[in-house]
Amino acid sequence: MFDKEYDVIVVGGGHAGAEAAAAAANLGSKTLLVTMNLQTIGQMSCNPAMGGIAKGQIVREIDALGGYSGIVSDKSAIQFKMLNKSKGPAMWSPRTQNDRMRFAEEWRIALEKTPNVDFYQDMVSGLLMEGIKIVGVKTSLGLSIRSKAVVLTNGTFLNGLIHIGDKQFGGGRSGEKASTGITEQLVSLGFESGRMKTGTPPRVDGRSLDYSKMIIQPGDPIPEKFSYTPTTPLKLQRDCHMTHTSQLVHDLLKEGFDRSPMFNGRIKSLGPRYCPSIEDKINRFADKDSHQLFVEPEGWNTVEVYVNGFSTSLPEDVQYKALKSVVGFENVKFFRPGYAIEYDYFQPTQLKHTLETKLIDNLYFAGQINGTTGYEEAASQGLMAGINAHLKINEKENFILKRDEAYIGVLIDDLITKGTEEPYRMFTSRAEYRTLLRQDNADLRLTPRSYAIGLANEDQLKRMEEKENNSNKFIDFFRETSVTAEDINPILESVGSALVNQTGKMFKVFSRPNVTMDHMLQLENVSKFVAEGDFKRDVLEQTEIQVKYSGYISKEKNNADKLQRLENIKIPDNFDYSKLKSLSFEAREKLNAIRPVTISQASRISGVSPSDISVLLVFMGR
Amino acid sequence: MFDKEYDVIVVGGGHAGAEAAAAAANLGSKTLLVTMNLQTIGQMSCNPAMGGIAKGQIVREIDALGGYSGIVSDKSAIQFKMLNKSKGPAMWSPRTQNDRMRFAEEWRIALEKTPNVDFYQDMVSGLLMEGIKIVGVKTSLGLSIRSKAVVLTNGTFLNGLIHIGDKQFGGGRSGEKASTGITEQLVSLGFESGRMKTGTPPRVDGRSLDYSKMIIQPGDPIPEKFSYTPTTPLKLQRDCHMTHTSQLVHDLLKEGFDRSPMFNGRIKSLGPRYCPSIEDKINRFADKDSHQLFVEPEGWNTVEVYVNGFSTSLPEDVQYKALKSVVGFENVKFFRPGYAIEYDYFQPTQLKHTLETKLIDNLYFAGQINGTTGYEEAASQGLMAGINAHLKINEKENFILKRDEAYIGVLIDDLITKGTEEPYRMFTSRAEYRTLLRQDNADLRLTPRSYAIGLANEDQLKRMEEKENNSNKFIDFFRETSVTAEDINPILESVGSALVNQTGKMFKVFSRPNVTMDHMLQLENVSKFVAEGDFKRDVLEQTEIQVKYSGYISKEKNNADKLQRLENIKIPDNFDYSKLKSLSFEAREKLNAIRPVTISQASRISGVSPSDISVLLVFMGR
Repeated sequence: MFDKEYDVIVVGGGHAGAEAAAAAANLGSKTLLVTMNLQTIGQMSCNPAMGGIAKGQIVREIDALGGYSGIVSDKSAIQFKMLNKSKGPAMWSPRTQNDRMRFAEEWRIALEKTPNVDFYQDMVSGLLMEGIKIVGVKTSLGLSIRSKAVVLTNGTFLNGLIHIGDKQFGGGRSGEKASTGITEQLVSLGFESGRMKTGTPPRVDGRSLDYSKMIIQPGDPIPEKFSYTPTTPLKLQRDCHMTHTSQLVHDLLKEGFDRSPMFNGRIKSLGPRYCPSIEDKINRFADKDSHQLFVEPEGWNTVEVYVNGFSTSLPEDVQYKALKSVVGFENVKFFRPGYAIEYDYFQPTQLKHTLETKLIDNLYFAGQINGTTGYEEAASQGLMAGINAHLKINEKENFILKRDEAYIGVLIDDLITKGTEEPYRMFTSRAEYRTLLRQDNADLRLTPRSYAIGLANEDQLKRMEEKENNSNKFIDFFRETSVTAEDINPILESVGSALVNQTGKMFKVFSRPNVTMDHMLQLENVSKFVAEGDFKRDVLEQTEIQVKYSGYISKEKNNADKLQRLENIKIPDNFDYSKLKSLSFEAREKLNAIRPVTISQASRISGVSPSDISVLLVFMGR
Repeated sequence: MFDKEYDVIVVGGGHAGAEAAAAAANLGSKTLLVTMNLQTIGQMSCNPAMGGIAKGQIVREIDALGGYSGIVSDKSAIQFKMLNKSKGPAMWSPRTQNDRMRFAEEWRIALEKTPNVDFYQDMVSGLLMEGIKIVGVKTSLGLSIRSKAVVLTNGTFLNGLIHIGDKQFGGGRSGEKASTGITEQLVSLGFESGRMKTGTPPRVDGRSLDYSKMIIQPGDPIPEKFSYTPTTPLKLQRDCHMTHTSQLVHDLLKEGFDRSPMFNGRIKSLGPRYCPSIEDKINRFADKDSHQLFVEPEGWNTVEVYVNGFSTSLPEDVQYKALKSVVGFENVKFFRPGYAIEYDYFQPTQLKHTLETKLIDNLYFAGQINGTTGYEEAASQGLMAGINAHLKINEKENFILKRDEAYIGVLIDDLITKGTEEPYRMFTSRAEYRTLLRQDNADLRLTPRSYAIGLANEDQLKRMEEKENNSNKFIDFFRETSVTAEDINPILESVGSALVNQTGKMFKVFSRPNVTMDHMLQLENVSKFVAEGDFKRDVLEQTEIQVKYSGYISKEKNNADKLQRLENIKIPDNFDYSKLKSLSFEAREKLNAIRPVTISQASRISGVSPSDISVLLVFMGR
C-alpha cells in the first residue's frame, strides 16, 4: 500500500505528533502521520486548557516558529486569561480553557489542510531497520512503511498500564488500547528505557454541582489570544469555578491510602512533582488542611467537567466519598474516576539537541517518551523534532534554540543534558534569562529564525517586522522627545511619584514605577505620534515593556552574552574524557555518557563541578 | 459510588443505547448510560449516512415516537435526498449524508440535555444477578451498579474480532477494545449465543481522488428533513460522487481470495446479505463486470471519504491495488483499510415483543446483539427497549407496535418470531402493509400512541393533529366539491388524460394518474381553500397521497383488519404444544421454542404450515 518512501513518518497524533507532522510537511517533507485512531488526533487527554505559567510562553514560541498549537487553541478557546499580569512582564503567562472536542477537530482540520501530510490509522509495532539504519516503521497490520526519518511521539501508550485503586488494566488512555512492541525493540537496539507515571482527575457531571457555593473564575474582561496570526479573540467566554478540599476530605482520602497504588508499592515510577495527585499533596503537605480545586468545563456545550487539582489513583469509592465532601460537590455524579497511568519513557540524555537519538541516525523522540509532562512541552518538542528531521534528511544545518532564545531551548537543553527521573515540566525558574523569554516577544525572538529555515511564512515575518520597527520607532521617540515639567508633573503627582523641576527626556519619566503607557498617552504629542504611526496594541505593549524594563533586559542580555563565550567553546565529537585524570570520576562518567557539545553544556551537567570545567578549559587551551 | 438504585441501566452508547437511554429517561426513569468511552457516544461506525429505503421510514417512526435519531440526523446532515420519488409514496425514503463528528456531538449534547440521563465510562463486564433476578451490572473497575432493568446494546463489541486478510485482532471497532465477560455469563444463564460478521470499507483521503472522472451525486434541490419537529432543512449541501469497479478491479481483488478470511474458512459466521463485501459481490454475481461505488464525504470539513460499496476484509495490499484501479482512485491514499468484524449475538427468538428476554425478567437486548445490522434498526430497537423497560418497572402495559402500524413492528416481530442467522436488515418488502407504513404518515400512525404513554410531547401531538385535521378537511373538500368540465379539461388535456363531458367531484379526477396537487392548485377554489386554511406543505402532500392512493390504502387496511382477527386470538402463556400430536413435529418444536403470543405470530414462524395453524385454531375453539 505504501509503495513510495516518505520523507518523515510521525508516530502518534497527540500534541507532539501533530506539531511534528505539520512542521516537517510545511518545510516540504512528504510526511505520514500514523496513529492508532485517527478520531483521537489532538486529544486533550488531561485538562481542557493550554498555556499557563511558562507553558503559555511556549505556546507563543511555537506560534512564532510557525507551529499550530496557538492557532488551534485560539479557535477552540472558551476562556482566556493572562496570568500574573500584576507581576513583571517576564511572568505574564497566557492561558486558555478549551472546548476539548473542538480542539481535536481544529487540529484535525489544520493537519488535513496541510498538503504534505498523509494520514494512516494503524498501530506502529516497531521500527523498520536495515542494520543500524532506520528506514521506516512496521505496523501491527504487518505493513512496512519506508521513510528517511521517523519521529516517535507515543505519549503514555508504550506499555501503558492504568491504575485505579487495586485495579490495573493495559491501556494508553482510559478506554484506549496500549501500544506494544516499540520499547522492546528500542531496548534491544541499546536504548535505556524507564517507567514514568502520570495521573488524571475524575470527570464529573456539571449538572450535579452547586456552583453557587463556589467562587466564580471568569476570563479576562478583554481577552487576548495566543497566536500572532490574525485569529479572533473571544467575544463570549465560559466561566470556571473554584472550590477547595477540607480536613474532612483529606481524612476520607486517607482512609483509602492502604489501597493506593501510589503508597502500597504497586506504582514504582515517579509522577509529576508539580502536578501531584491529591493523595500526594495530602501526604507531602500534611500541615495544609485545604487545597484549591478548579472546576473547568470541558467545552461550550457539554456538561462534562474537569476537576483540576483532584488527580488521583485512589479506589473509585474513595474518590467518590471524598469528592462528595467538597463544597459544591455534595451531589456529584462521576462521568469517570481519576486514574494513574504508568508508561515507558527513554532517558532523554540519549538524545542530541535536535531530539535525534544518539544511537540511531534519523530517529527522533518528542513528548512524553522523553520524560516530559504537559501539552506545551510535548508540542514544542514535536515541532523541533519535525523541523530537525526535515533539515537532517535534506542535509541542512540543525535548528537549535539556545537557552537565551526560547523556553523551548531551555527545555531541550535541560532534558538532554540533565535527563529526568520524574516527568519534566517547564517553569519560569528553569530559565536563566526569563526576562528575555517573554510571551510578548516570542515573535521578535523566533520568527526571523524560523523564516530563515522556511517554516514561518512571509506574512508572519512581515507582521513581526512591523511590530519590531514600530516599537523601535516608538522607543526612539521616547528617548529623543522631551517633556516639560509642566506637562509631566500632573501625571507624576497622580501616581505619587516625585515631581520634576525641569524639562527632560520622556524615556526617563516613563521608566519610573507606576508610570504606564496609558499615562504617557495622555501627553498630546505621544498620542499624536501613535495615531500617525497607526500603532496597534502589540506595539504599545512592546514599547512599554522595553522602556520600563530596559534595565533588567540589558543586564540579562549581558549575562547571556558572557555565558555565550562558554557556549562557543565546542568540545570535539569523540572527545575522550577518560584520559583527563584530573577530572573527578563522576564528571568523567557523566561527560562520557552525555557527551556535551559545548563547555557551557558541560557545566550544566549535574555532577560536573566548576573545577572540572576549569580542567576542561585548560585542556582546550583557554 | 453508585449508592442509589437506577431505574434503567443502558449498556452501550451507540444508536441503540442512545435511543434507549433517551426514551427511558424522558418517560421518567432514572437512567444510567454506561459505555467504554464517553467520547464515542453516537459514533457512526460505518457509513456516514442515515435512512435510505425502509430505513428512512424507520427514522421517521423513531421521530414520531419521540426518539432523537431524526433530530440528530437533521442537525448533522450535509446532504438530503428523498429516494424513490419517482415511485409510489410507499417507496419514498428519506436519506441524509451526515458529518460524522457532528452527528456524535449532537447525540452527546441531546443526551446531556436529557435530565434523567446520567453517564458513566467503564466497561460492563457482567450482569448483577440475585438468583435469576437481574439487579444491575458489574463493571471492569469492580463496581456494582444497581437498577431495576438493564438494556444491553453492545453492538459489535462482545468478543469482537477484527479480520484484515490473514491478520486478526481483538477489538470492538478499529482502534477500540473488545468487551468481554457478558457473553460468557449470559450463556451460563442459559442463553444461546452465536457469531455474526459485518464489515466496513476503506476510508481514504479525498485529496487523493479525481472527482472530475466521477459522476456527481448532489442532494435534492429542495432538501426536506427527517424530523416532524421544527428542525431546519439544509441550505448548503455537500455532493457525493459515484464511480464503479471494472473487470480489472475484480481480477485484482480475486488475486487475494486465497488470503480472504471470508473464503479460506477463517470467518465462519454470516455477514449481511444485502450489504455484502466487494469480494462477496464478485463471487455471487460473477457475471457482473462492474459494481457501483458511492464516494461519500465524512463531514463538512474533513477530507476523509467513505467508499460505499467497497466493504472488504481482503489483505490491505489487495484492497489498495484494486481500489487504485477504480476510475478516479488512481492516486488513492488510504486513511485505513476496510475490515471484517466477528462478534457475539443472541438469537432474537429468545426475546419477547418488548425486547425483554424470555429467560430473565427486566433484561432487554437491542441492536446488533439481536442479530440486526444498520443504525436505524438498532436505534428503533433501543427506543422500544427503553420504552418497555420503563413501562415494565412501573407495572404499566407493554408498548408493542403491530406489523400494520410500523416498520419497527415488522422488525421486532420478524426478529423474535423467525430469528436470524445472518445480519437482519429492513426492506420495504418485509412489510405486508407497506402502503400503510409510509414515511409521510409516521406521525399520524405513531405520535398519538407515543403520546398516550407519555413519550411524545404535547407539541408533537398538536403538530400531528393539525396536519391530520387539515388533511382530512382538504380531502373532504375534494370529495364534496365539484369541478366543471370546462375548468378541468385543460388540465386533463395537458397530462394526456381522457376529457370529461360533465361536472363531477374533484376527488375522482384528482385520483387519475398524472393529475397532481400542483394541477389541482391551478383551480381557483382549490388554491383559495388552501390559502384560507393556511395549509402547509405537509398537508398538501398528505392529502395528495391519501386521495391518489386511496384505493390501495383502503385495500391494505382491509387486509390488515382481516389478519388482525388472527392477531386477536391469543395463545395462553404456557401452552403445551407437545400435547397436540396432530401438529407436525417441526411445528411443535418451533412453537415450543418461540412461544408465539398470537395465532397470527404462530403463522409467521418458518416451519409452521397453514395446516398446523388450522390445528391450533380448532384447538382454540375457532
